[in-house]
Amino acid sequence: MTAHQGPVQPTPAATSALRPVALDGVAFAADGFFGRWQRRNATGTLPHCVEQLEVSGALDNLRLVTGEVTGEFRNMWFADSDVHKTLEAAAWQLTSDPGDERLRAFVDTAAELLAKAQGDDGYLNSHYTVVKPERRWQELHYSHELYVGGHLIQAAVAAARAGVGAELVAVARRFADLLVDCFGGPDAPPGIDGHPGVETALVELFRVTGHRPYLDLARRMLDLRGQGLLDGERFGSAYLQDHVPVRRAEEVAGHVVRQLYLLAGVVDVAVETGDEELLDAARRLWDDAFGSKTYLTGAQGSRHRDEAFGDPYELPADRAYGETCAAIASVQWNWRMLLATGESRYADELERALYNAVAGSTSADGTRFFYSNPLHLRTGHDGSHEDAPSQRLPWYSCACCPPNLARLVASLHGYTATTDDTGVQVHLYSAGTVRTEAAEIVTRTNYPWDGRVELDVTGSGPFTLALRVPGWCAEASALVDGVPVDVVPEGGYLRLRRDWSGGATVTLDLAMPVRVVTAHPRVDAVRGCVALARGPLVYCVEQADLPAGVVLEDVRIDPAAAVEPTDLPDVPVALTTRGAVVPPGDDALYRTGTPDSAAAPLRLTAVPYFLWGNRSPGPMRVWIPTTTTG
Amino acid sequence: MTAHQGPVQPTPAATSALRPVALDGVAFAADGFFGRWQRRNATGTLPHCVEQLEVSGALDNLRLVTGEVTGEFRNMWFADSDVHKTLEAAAWQLTSDPGDERLRAFVDTAAELLAKAQGDDGYLNSHYTVVKPERRWQELHYSHELYVGGHLIQAAVAAARAGVGAELVAVARRFADLLVDCFGGPDAPPGIDGHPGVETALVELFRVTGHRPYLDLARRMLDLRGQGLLDGERFGSAYLQDHVPVRRAEEVAGHVVRQLYLLAGVVDVAVETGDEELLDAARRLWDDAFGSKTYLTGAQGSRHRDEAFGDPYELPADRAYGETCAAIASVQWNWRMLLATGESRYADELERALYNAVAGSTSADGTRFFYSNPLHLRTGHDGSHEDAPSQRLPWYSCACCPPNLARLVASLHGYTATTDDTGVQVHLYSAGTVRTEAAEIVTRTNYPWDGRVELDVTGSGPFTLALRVPGWCAEASALVDGVPVDVVPEGGYLRLRRDWSGGATVTLDLAMPVRVVTAHPRVDAVRGCVALARGPLVYCVEQADLPAGVVLEDVRIDPAAAVEPTDLPDVPVALTTRGAVVPPGDDALYRTGTPDSAAAPLRLTAVPYFLWGNRSPGPMRVWIPTTTTG
Repeated sequence: MTAHQGPVQPTPAATSALRPVALDGVAFAADGFFGRWQRRNATGTLPHCVEQLEVSGALDNLRLVTGEVTGEFRNMWFADSDVHKTLEAAAWQLTSDPGDERLRAFVDTAAELLAKAQGDDGYLNSHYTVVKPERRWQELHYSHELYVGGHLIQAAVAAARAGVGAELVAVARRFADLLVDCFGGPDAPPGIDGHPGVETALVELFRVTGHRPYLDLARRMLDLRGQGLLDGERFGSAYLQDHVPVRRAEEVAGHVVRQLYLLAGVVDVAVETGDEELLDAARRLWDDAFGSKTYLTGAQGSRHRDEAFGDPYELPADRAYGETCAAIASVQWNWRMLLATGESRYADELERALYNAVAGSTSADGTRFFYSNPLHLRTGHDGSHEDAPSQRLPWYSCACCPPNLARLVASLHGYTATTDDTGVQVHLYSAGTVRTEAAEIVTRTNYPWDGRVELDVTGSGPFTLALRVPGWCAEASALVDGVPVDVVPEGGYLRLRRDWSGGATVTLDLAMPVRVVTAHPRVDAVRGCVALARGPLVYCVEQADLPAGVVLEDVRIDPAAAVEPTDLPDVPVALTTRGAVVPPGDDALYRTGTPDSAAAPLRLTAVPYFLWGNRSPGPMRVWIPTTTTG
Repeated sequence: MTAHQGPVQPTPAATSALRPVALDGVAFAADGFFGRWQRRNATGTLPHCVEQLEVSGALDNLRLVTGEVTGEFRNMWFADSDVHKTLEAAAWQLTSDPGDERLRAFVDTAAELLAKAQGDDGYLNSHYTVVKPERRWQELHYSHELYVGGHLIQAAVAAARAGVGAELVAVARRFADLLVDCFGGPDAPPGIDGHPGVETALVELFRVTGHRPYLDLARRMLDLRGQGLLDGERFGSAYLQDHVPVRRAEEVAGHVVRQLYLLAGVVDVAVETGDEELLDAARRLWDDAFGSKTYLTGAQGSRHRDEAFGDPYELPADRAYGETCAAIASVQWNWRMLLATGESRYADELERALYNAVAGSTSADGTRFFYSNPLHLRTGHDGSHEDAPSQRLPWYSCACCPPNLARLVASLHGYTATTDDTGVQVHLYSAGTVRTEAAEIVTRTNYPWDGRVELDVTGSGPFTLALRVPGWCAEASALVDGVPVDVVPEGGYLRLRRDWSGGATVTLDLAMPVRVVTAHPRVDAVRGCVALARGPLVYCVEQADLPAGVVLEDVRIDPAAAVEPTDLPDVPVALTTRGAVVPPGDDALYRTGTPDSAAAPLRLTAVPYFLWGNRSPGPMRVWIPTTTTG
């Protein structure tokens, strides 16, 4: 039953409150939301990534090392990580589709290439081997050598848990052993990478192998960080979280993906070593990040310049950076926080990021992607830059996001349910089956379009079934075998304690009225605006649904009007409400007094944010000015 | 009378509508606003720049070439331009203070150093000579070689007009002749610089020397631009205005300083060659820039990432880049547009930028500077990056702004008055004297603190005295020798046609009620906010004037309340009005429904934006949310 573990597997000794249900224990129904998403990932995103590894030159870079090809190194100096992330995705996918021979062949071939490209001492990095071998380990603030190695290790961890690619596991262990040799001893030079990521990978490798030096090295890296050991270069020490020790940090700072990957490693080390101080630091930084530096979509990162968090409440909708990888990292960090603590707020933020920022990054066919995920695409936007295109692109010169999506979605069923001594916890709802040693739960639901979740539960005896009542849900009701039960969530979960051996059907109804959302008044960027949300989904207004000639920025919404569901092709639940078009009156950029402008009524339509840009590229906004503000 | 011409001197053949009054013809009174500013520049900013040329290594970089010192090249690869700009400032200053021997010695010594560092062929660039001689002219998209040379030429133009530094003029001519040799012929390779600036310099050198090939080369550079000849590298062709020919451009784009320097050259070439198409392009781009891409302070540049304009109406107050050099360039471009056309709107924007963005960049003592000029510094702002510090800094690793300020302010009297066939035009008011061949005007005023301007006018006969009625002024009145005259501005100017040979006193009263300003409703960033302005000055609220414990972002203003002048130390006219503090109610970043929050009344104080940050570093905002918005 536990043959194929998924990502993040605390050891039995870990202080984690919860343990994930194994990948083998969760299966999404093909017609559910997650089931469709995984299918699209398997047939669209993942094959596209495999193909792009050839097109982009990522595999050829490695073949430069082995001598199979000649030429120049191509694209980013950390492009090996695209290969590793795709391998990780493939490994997870093979747990669901073990018969996919093409995918298996890709894993075997790529692992063989990596083995050939690896140095005798275990070193593996095509850029530093081909372009500047003399700089190995010499510019860790910049080189991404450990970051890339971390993705190699994570691919190997996935391969080991999936029971494929034994050669890949051997390669990663040789690399990890080299890291321990070079940077693990008390007198070793401080080996920390400008881009975190290897820390969590080392803990996961420890979990797979039981080899304690990997965990010790990860912990050492965390404790060395924040002492200004790295060259801060252009963006300063905070950019790479080397400005303050993580145990003392009060605020998230710098490059968002780096910060969040680091925090994933922090939680992993904390639970495996019982380090409450580390976990407290993670809680503190979480409060900061989600208290004043997170978009309504769960996206994070307000600044394009250094892909960084902004000041508190600096959350511009149009210049939201919201890197896809950051949203993925947020899912990973929140999942670790949830496992460590059992607290539902982490599941709430995981869900927010997953259904909005992460889901919105990918096109309906799974082969085009946003790297940045703004909440407002302006009329007249110049989309010529890769950092802020007007529509999803098939690949990027820095291609971190697409294979990152592939690995997350291929293992998504590993992020939905957990167990503890009391029983089973269901955190995310999708049609499908959850099986643990003690229980089987068959779920029928049209979530997130509908808040009704029906669960057929059987078990070998008494246990507590904990069903998450999302933070967005103000009114939940439940039946067990048709009999109402009081819904008094404890810690965000409806906890049903009973003997399930006879089987029972639980019906959970999470009321999903449309919510008219406002932001904290210090979020200046969206003052006088509201956003529409329903269930876990944030909505947006797209140019595609406006009458010809209407400028999106002139649209207003009546915040007091009723919002109704409406039908649109390919949009299961769209929304419609009363709005207006208010032309600017005159062209003056600054005025004294208010120019006359006659508001024209408008029937306003909103679609789920994650579906934006699939019908036509064009202006879009999540936050809509109200008719009462002007 | 015209011995010392100032910056921008159209030739007699130029199609300019107006001609600047010579530097010798304008003297600011020592106790007027501009007089004090120039004095501070002469005693504070300029000596500070001269000193920093040594401290920063900019002069030592040139001494590396001559062999006077050994070591490494320091700071930016275009740091020679810091020397050139300081030389230009010194030359202008010497027209006002010809007896300043230390300054004269600086000019002579630096000019001698430049002459020694110059190659036999005329090439002069310490970085390329010392660090990568083999790359000379090989990477013009990046090298700034022509940009740096442009500042050398502008220094020489100033020196020539000031009658100092003959050696400097010779150096610059040798460099310019080399440019003509290398890039001037019809079969020459396309020599255009990723950073414009040399174009306007070449036209000015043509004006000084009458040597037509300089003008022809400038025109050639303009026409070669926009064909994608330059490597767009990281930020794309639009970043360096190489994405579309300037004659066809519809929108300002890319790096703001580059765009504006280019447009200064466009106007210069247009008027010297009678090229209406070029001038029309400049008009079109002006409409775009000032119609949707300019801050209330006259600052331009919405993006830190690439120091660039944003999309239309993308004008975030907190992340305003508003580079000081861009505001200086705006003054320079608007002055050229004003000369070319005689239209007052250009003077209006020149004044806006000068009194707010430019003036605000410099500390009260003249030795600390902002590089970026935001309109909102947030509570909790991380000011550790040079691109967005919390207070003015004495110097920058990219030190373009301080010496740029020095050269503008030292020549500021060259930007105030003009002549044409009909008479004299006064565009900017400050206590002092304007003398032309036909007229003498002695001005008494406390502008910008007070709108009364008294002018004693004498002349050799009849002419038209044109007095600008600023665009911000809704109500102007005037007396001539105590007798009211109708103020019916023609094209933005009160035009008084009479025989002035007997002398007369004109009293112009520009009413200066406080204006409560709103922005175009498509400027999402300041929705629900107003700003206070009075005369040409924009005001702001600073933490220094708030009661202890009040968070600036919780402050509201009653837009309907009266605004009164009030006294503050070192602030000639502060403002006070009714406001409130509205605590956020709860900490939730996103909410449904409005949390209870009890507004507490607050007497709100605002100070001129240009004075912010002089009392204590701390939060500041120009745009203040209203009590009616929340």
